Amino acid sequence: MTVAVVNMGIEEQARAHQDNLTKPRGALGRLEDVACWFAARQGKKLPDRLNPHIAVFAGDHGVCEEGVSAFPSVVTGEMVKNFARGGAAINVLARQCGASLSVVDVGVISDLSGVDGVQQRKVRSGTANLLSGAAMTRDECAAAVAVGREEAKAAIAAGANLLIAGDMGIGNTTASACIICRLAGAAPEAVVGFGTGVDDAGRSLKVDVVARALQRIAEQANDLVLQEVGGLEIAAMAGFYLQAAESGVPVVIDGFIASAAALAARQIEPLACDWMLASHISHENGHALALRALGLSALIDFEMRLGEGSGAALVVPLLQSAIALHKEMATFESAGISGEVEA
Amino acid sequence: MTVAVVNMGIEEQARAHQDNLTKPRGALGRLEDVACWFAARQGKKLPDRLNPHIAVFAGDHGVCEEGVSAFPSVVTGEMVKNFARGGAAINVLARQCGASLSVVDVGVISDLSGVDGVQQRKVRSGTANLLSGAAMTRDECAAAVAVGREEAKAAIAAGANLLIAGDMGIGNTTASACIICRLAGAAPEAVVGFGTGVDDAGRSLKVDVVARALQRIAEQANDLVLQEVGGLEIAAMAGFYLQAAESGVPVVIDGFIASAAALAARQIEPLACDWMLASHISHENGHALALRALGLSALIDFEMRLGEGSGAALVVPLLQSAIALHKEMATFESAGISGEVEA
Repeated sequence: MTVAVVNMGIEEQARAHQDNLTKPRGALGRLEDVACWFAARQGKKLPDRLNPHIAVFAGDHGVCEEGVSAFPSVVTGEMVKNFARGGAAINVLARQCGASLSVVDVGVISDLSGVDGVQQRKVRSGTANLLSGAAMTRDECAAAVAVGREEAKAAIAAGANLLIAGDMGIGNTTASACIICRLAGAAPEAVVGFGTGVDDAGRSLKVDVVARALQRIAEQANDLVLQEVGGLEIAAMAGFYLQAAESGVPVVIDGFIASAAALAARQIEPLACDWMLASHISHENGHALALRALGLSALIDFEMRLGEGSGAALVVPLLQSAIALHKEMATFESAGISGEVEA
Repeated sequence: MTVAVVNMGIEEQARAHQDNLTKPRGALGRLEDVACWFAARQGKKLPDRLNPHIAVFAGDHGVCEEGVSAFPSVVTGEMVKNFARGGAAINVLARQCGASLSVVDVGVISDLSGVDGVQQRKVRSGTANLLSGAAMTRDECAAAVAVGREEAKAAIAAGANLLIAGDMGIGNTTASACIICRLAGAAPEAVVGFGTGVDDAGRSLKVDVVARALQRIAEQANDLVLQEVGGLEIAAMAGFYLQAAESGVPVVIDGFIASAAALAARQIEPLACDWMLASHISHENGHALALRALGLSALIDFEMRLGEGSGAALVVPLLQSAIALHKEMATFESAGISGEVEA
């Protein structure tokens, strides 16, 4: 694949434009950086308003049989139905930020074939237990990645210029912790968190499961991490990010699961990170560490740990404001305002 | 004055409601706190969508003759004209968050009497130099506070249920630093920043000016701090906050100047802080310290240092999202989702 090239010349032009706006230089802080980041990626000194699309990928996890989650696997399918009816957090946040939303079953155990509003792209009904063997085969993993790629392509074709991937999958903090530990080079104790709400004993169990899974794949290449200990929805998210980078469309990375998928995408194509913007620092342990490994810096810390793309959707209005300020503010010249004097 | 009472019973009901929404408990982090904060203050378990009003108060500062700012005082009036034409950052952000905006001349040196869209409430043409004597008289300070109160009353009467005060005043980081040092008990070195962009020598000069002003008022009561070393726009902002608390309408505190005004309001009425929500941590030195003194915790850190109410306006969509999630998400029961199991 070929990742689209970021236009650094346009970024410089955007910076120069920022310095002419009616404010002290740099006074808008990270909003200035965000506006210039989009300018460089849209290839326009004055970037277009964002037209976001959110794709939520859902899949189940065989590792749940180890008791790693506070909720049973059946909740994955129930939550997908909740997405389809518009009652979940991501539905509300999509409405708030004017994003279109698609819900993709890439591997839920429950049969969702009759559910309106859910794309039927099931690769298999849940992964195998990553503790005892590969979570999926090479072909299944590739098929899930392809689902994510196709979803990104379709959204871009429909006019989206900002992409967000969300996740739903009971057990997926365990799979994500395995990926983050391995691809960011970190210990389970530093990465494993409380997920949907296990207690201290539940977390200790998760740490042990992750440690043993990592031991199982210790001799395998990094390229196999996604299929060995990943998830179908995580693979789809990685594909989504890869396609976005190839098509030259920015993505906003959500929390813990999304960052695991981003690391998996980076493993396939290191330059994919050029098109990623981090939204928030999840309250889930190890997320900050994953972002550092990706070279990304989160915009906000709201102590969220929901997934679904919620943190990424939440920050979209901040991104819109950054672009609107960049485009709509008067310049010192146009406003007839006296320039800076020597202090 | 009598500050409106926050309804903690409703806050508990709102918390219980949050725990029934289709997400793990606490997974929306600070968004849950924000929704419950508004519930308690609106007295409604499901609070209304926010209808924000932003009032920008402008005034000049006699202390500018000490060379404390990178910009000349004439820029205050020029920026007010920019606000009136819609070209400043706060205009863009007001449009982004659907806020109404008023611009109030409470003490600009320039004559703005012919400028459409600017409220003519000039108490005096700039303060006196706070280094050599009182910035304003007791009556002038009271008059400026009254302007802010009236502005809040008018906005509430027009239907606003969220108030933001913004500032414009070349030299006002110096006045604000004096207030913060004195009312938060901090040293000038820890509080004085670079304002609109002075260099290191300029900042050293500011530190010295603030230290000498504090020395001048060392024997005076805290109640006199606002008139001695404050500003007309800062006094108006304090009045705005006081009226909001008395009327039981929440305010979002912006950055460094706004926090100085909030400290001044707290000096007049300690319970006023019950109605304050902090928006961002300004990049200006000492702001974090001022927020701690107010007992407030900022939502975001975007390294902004603009004023005008910009940081407060920026976070409004996050507050709207918090409330929308609280009101629109399905409950476990309504969505037919399996409850939490023992981990």
